[in-house]
Amino acid sequence: MEPERFNYDLEDCPIKRALDVLGEKWTLLVLREAMYGVRRFDDFARALKCGRGVLSARLKTLTDEGILKRVEYREGEQRARAEYHLDEKGIDLFTTIYALSQWGERWMPPPDGPVARVTDRGTGRAVKVVLTSEPKLRSLSMRDVKIAPGSGAKRIR
Amino acid sequence: MEPERFNYDLEDCPIKRALDVLGEKWTLLVLREAMYGVRRFDDFARALKCGRGVLSARLKTLTDEGILKRVEYREGEQRARAEYHLDEKGIDLFTTIYALSQWGERWMPPPDGPVARVTDRGTGRAVKVVLTSEPKLRSLSMRDVKIAPGSGAKRIR
Repeated sequence: MEPERFNYDLEDCPIKRALDVLGEKWTLLVLREAMYGVRRFDDFARALKCGRGVLSARLKTLTDEGILKRVEYREGEQRARAEYHLDEKGIDLFTTIYALSQWGERWMPPPDGPVARVTDRGTGRAVKVVLTSEPKLRSLSMRDVKIAPGSGAKRIR
Repeated sequence: MEPERFNYDLEDCPIKRALDVLGEKWTLLVLREAMYGVRRFDDFARALKCGRGVLSARLKTLTDEGILKRVEYREGEQRARAEYHLDEKGIDLFTTIYALSQWGERWMPPPDGPVARVTDRGTGRAVKVVLTSEPKLRSLSMRDVKIAPGSGAKRIR
């Protein structure tokens, strides 16, 4: 493997631009929780065990960037509170996050097996991320997949 | 889209484990340069315009993790110096980094068009990252692709 070497201005690089938004560990972990269906501040805080200040800042960045959207909800007579739902830009990040997960599982396998199983809602088959040049191959979207706990999933209380 | 909600212990999560190694912006940018063929400390420093201390720390982490490997080289009578080559674990990260790049190009398009063009060495066709449940579909590897400057690439001097 000898890729042609070239250097270019870092500013326009889509990786750099993406990392300016996402390049902080908690941001991607917040998104992972959102992909698992977590929507409320307290649920994010409980799942991530990160400080509330950090979480609040990350949710704000992700909302400002249009990756999450803030949706108000009200339970009974309580005051309106916010839920954070994935917006299209966030849904489209699933492929990247799942590619990272696939790599992590391959090279640092979780001791008790996969923590999540991702299957195609249509066919029930396992979903994977691949690099391809097949022009006709259409990518599944996060909406087409089902995410369920794997053998290594440990419930938190 | 209503993914089944579940919470599990963060420690075994492959995304968390991957981000423990990669979750810092410069780490992924160092890897991107390595994928473009950059191998020497001074070339990384010039391309990234980051501090030498930060660069040195990131190269050490990536080498310790087996993502890069240190290879000595010698020019003429000079003392031996180090090059950093992608190891298998690093080559396998290409799909993730390219998925991130694809997302960045879609949602924050570079003003002058794509900075890089990635094509299949075998067919010459454009390469993309997709989410699929096709059981027979084999993923290309980074070794199968050619990375060339796109219309938005700006050489740095």
